[in-house]
Amino acid sequence: HLPMTLIAGPCVIEGLEFALRTAEALKQICEGVGVELVYKSSFDKANRTSEGSFRGPGMEAGLRILERVRREVGVPVITDVHEADQCVAVAEVVDMLQTPAFLCRQTDFIQAAARPGKPVNIKKGQFLAPQDMARVAAKAAATGNENILLCERGFSFGYQNLVVDMRGLSIMAQSGYPVIFDATHSVQQPGALGGASGGDRRFVSDLARAAVAVGVAGVFMEVHPDPDHAPCDGPNMLPMAHLSPLLDQLKALDRIRKEAMALESGLSLGDA
Amino acid sequence: HLPMTLIAGPCVIEGLEFALRTAEALKQICEGVGVELVYKSSFDKANRTSEGSFRGPGMEAGLRILERVRREVGVPVITDVHEADQCVAVAEVVDMLQTPAFLCRQTDFIQAAARPGKPVNIKKGQFLAPQDMARVAAKAAATGNENILLCERGFSFGYQNLVVDMRGLSIMAQSGYPVIFDATHSVQQPGALGGASGGDRRFVSDLARAAVAVGVAGVFMEVHPDPDHAPCDGPNMLPMAHLSPLLDQLKALDRIRKEAMALESGLSLGDA
Amino acid sequence: HLPMTLIAGPCVIEGLEFALRTAEALKQICEGVGVELVYKSSFDKANRTSEGSFRGPGMEAGLRILERVRREVGVPVITDVHEADQCVAVAEVVDMLQTPAFLCRQTDFIQAAARPGKPVNIKKGQFLAPQDMARVAAKAAATGNENILLCERGFSFGYQNLVVDMRGLSIMAQSGYPVIFDATHSVQQPGALGGASGGDRRFVSDLARAAVAVGVAGVFMEVHPDPDHAPCDGPNMLPMAHLSPLLDQLKALDRIRKEAMALESGLSLGDA
Amino acid sequence: HLPMTLIAGPCVIEGLEFALRTAEALKQICEGVGVELVYKSSFDKANRTSEGSFRGPGMEAGLRILERVRREVGVPVITDVHEADQCVAVAEVVDMLQTPAFLCRQTDFIQAAARPGKPVNIKKGQFLAPQDMARVAAKAAATGNENILLCERGFSFGYQNLVVDMRGLSIMAQSGYPVIFDATHSVQQPGALGGASGGDRRFVSDLARAAVAVGVAGVFMEVHPDPDHAPCDGPNMLPMAHLSPLLDQLKALDRIRKEAMALESGLSLGDA
Repeated sequence: HLPMTLIAGPCVIEGLEFALRTAEALKQICEGVGVELVYKSSFDKANRTSEGSFRGPGMEAGLRILERVRREVGVPVITDVHEADQCVAVAEVVDMLQTPAFLCRQTDFIQAAARPGKPVNIKKGQFLAPQDMARVAAKAAATGNENILLCERGFSFGYQNLVVDMRGLSIMAQSGYPVIFDATHSVQQPGALGGASGGDRRFVSDLARAAVAVGVAGVFMEVHPDPDHAPCDGPNMLPMAHLSPLLDQLKALDRIRKEAMALESGLSLGDA
Repeated sequence: HLPMTLIAGPCVIEGLEFALRTAEALKQICEGVGVELVYKSSFDKANRTSEGSFRGPGMEAGLRILERVRREVGVPVITDVHEADQCVAVAEVVDMLQTPAFLCRQTDFIQAAARPGKPVNIKKGQFLAPQDMARVAAKAAATGNENILLCERGFSFGYQNLVVDMRGLSIMAQSGYPVIFDATHSVQQPGALGGASGGDRRFVSDLARAAVAVGVAGVFMEVHPDPDHAPCDGPNMLPMAHLSPLLDQLKALDRIRKEAMALESGLSLGDA
Repeated sequence: HLPMTLIAGPCVIEGLEFALRTAEALKQICEGVGVELVYKSSFDKANRTSEGSFRGPGMEAGLRILERVRREVGVPVITDVHEADQCVAVAEVVDMLQTPAFLCRQTDFIQAAARPGKPVNIKKGQFLAPQDMARVAAKAAATGNENILLCERGFSFGYQNLVVDMRGLSIMAQSGYPVIFDATHSVQQPGALGGASGGDRRFVSDLARAAVAVGVAGVFMEVHPDPDHAPCDGPNMLPMAHLSPLLDQLKALDRIRKEAMALESGLSLGDA
Repeated sequence: HLPMTLIAGPCVIEGLEFALRTAEALKQICEGVGVELVYKSSFDKANRTSEGSFRGPGMEAGLRILERVRREVGVPVITDVHEADQCVAVAEVVDMLQTPAFLCRQTDFIQAAARPGKPVNIKKGQFLAPQDMARVAAKAAATGNENILLCERGFSFGYQNLVVDMRGLSIMAQSGYPVIFDATHSVQQPGALGGASGGDRRFVSDLARAAVAVGVAGVFMEVHPDPDHAPCDGPNMLPMAHLSPLLDQLKALDRIRKEAMALESGLSLGDA
């Protein structure tokens, strides 16, 4: 029962200087609190609501930036892949790959992401029951790569809304793989702004605290110095200024939960 | 930001001796942990899945038993009312009334429950958005009784399943009324056992921890010395032997959350 | 496989003259199309969203009006009951009783509605799976009254929205009881207008056609000469001027469906 | 308001002889009833629940079979694409392309499917509100191809279940594009069989009739001579022997609906 990790960063790579600056700031915050950081940012937003949305610098330019973040700031980095033929190139640069929720059932794609052998954070589809993630993980593991993380980011709950079923964190954990909770995409309201997805960042901290109290291996949060002017996902990103006090709480809650888990170990879910 | 209260007891009153014994046991556990207890048990299960289900001793006999629990064990008691004309008699005996989730939109009934002036724990319907509870509370408050608590117990999530939207706890709290989280009815699976409601008590502790980490005034749990042989709600009640270690965790999580809330106060949800 | 019946009328009794006039108008429309009419109107709206909503004339005055509609216009009437002790008085006046969706699990109430022996249209709760209505019907039938109809009116689908699962009509029909489809409450958006329920009457005709094509014993629609100025349920009521062309379509669809059902009879659902 | 088209065939291409035989049989049935047929079968099932599921002959072999079906049986054919780089090759063979529901938000992929200029049947994601399909269509239309059809196949409704919101058919039609209703995938129960998706083919005919009564341009159904022994989607495919009587009903319902639509034309949804 290791202490929780934080996967965090701005939704999309906005440029080299911006990436270096936000990575450095996040590193400082995490060192201050005492939490491990993995820096996350996307090179392409491949599934935007509308045709005209900002999509990022693309794979080549994006990977060059992540490489420099990794080397110059000295933090591990994660980014998301969108097509099978991107996975090898991405895996050469980053420390961890991430697969999009909509694509969690695409067998070839999931296996392409796992095959290079880097850890893969597999997001659960908004349409997938938590118990069904074990079979998604099995597809990935069939490549020989067992470095798999399963990530909750909300389930469809009527139109243009998501709900997080906290039971799902424990159900996914029964697979034996570490579970990550994505606290910012979970508050998205898909399509609710018309040409873009809405969200309600007021609830990011509620959901993050709840998930940590249930017990997770890590928390994922998109964080931005100025979300209201971000090129994407503004409504659900956490302002960077709010991160440190939230992490303090999460770390304290995590310690209590992990201590209890240590006492409980040997007890399966079925004994509860 | 007072420490959390526990509302707990067996689903239905199974007899005087049983009530006294379970109340005494719960009192000991709560004193051990240092949590305030309100003892809950129902005199009638008015909305069972099937005609033939056990319904309890009825109002008259049930109130006599609760009266003795209150006096002999020395704990405050709460019970649920089901019809407007029960409310005065019940309010004369108990310390707090509770209204069933299915009835949360019945104006006359909610007002009848509030009118005697005792605190009322109003359960949110499985069909009601959390933001709509403010208007339910307003109906109750229109009687002049402002001692209102709002209680989450899960929302319909497909057939024969419920989900707890942890965002709802904060949304309800914006009404200004204390929020209670019912951790055992929230894991019910209505009708899932055919002639009875199912449930999955493995998740009671997950949801309780999550809710306390979000921040609630109290937790409600049906607790039974032997749930598998209880006359109702067995699948979702918590075994009494599991209560003490769970309360220890909840108390620790609650302290962290309430300390943070004290720091945050002055900040509204909208600032988050 | 009898031709479909129409249960229709304004949401609430707005006065004697209004009731007589709308009943007469509906009677003319239904005779023109060749559809059986049962006139529906409520004497009390017992579960409004807000404290201050219009609730109707009350039981005594309402029953006097329904009695005159029945006698002077010459149509059967149905109204909804809200408490067990109303059922005998209501059953003395009306041809059919109706029970509210929220109350479908209240055993004593459902049995009180059935006991007088008049037909009872039992609305399925917004939280109840269609397969669970068989047990609700069994509670009613245990009184000796087998004149039971089961009514679909939408299931909770995220917050402040309902969805009609057309599979549910066939599932409820397996109980052996006639199934009614409530086309206007099914388009409600509970609480969506803040202090009142919203709705979208554009979809009433879509859902009514769909249900008749699946196969139902009858269609329920709240109809009003001027819904935008009605005291309640305006957003989801059908304007009376739209009824006749819709009924023409429903009657034609119903004939096709019922002819096919006659051919299929002897085939159970399981053979399909 | 053209008469409805039928898109039908076995889930996956099981071989040349099988494809020719099922296409010929479907052609005979559709000519008998008087309905236009587009033959559908998949060369790859790219998103199965489990690693070990049967996936089909692959693109090359599959296209050769569809080519022969088209030429020898004389029916137009449709198949689904799964990756952007398949679209050109597929479009050279088939009359219409189809995109998978899970991929409806992948901008590059949707545009790749549209770019060759053949009609594209875009399935709505199980997580997408019907009003959001207009923006998906706009992405496709931005390639210059306006031959777009929008296809409903159910929305996530709790875990391992889907619901069809019949209102969605009208909402999608407001985009101006023809709407197809997929009656067999709509009754799927994703993951419900453990290692495979379940389904309940008893409801295919109910949902198909309902959708036609609402008004659609076409109906999609996976049909198989022996679904219980099919390599995939057995639980939800329609037995071929049941097709002819169902099409008779659908055709009759469609005629009534289209005649009414002709009368209504000039009326927008907003007038209803």
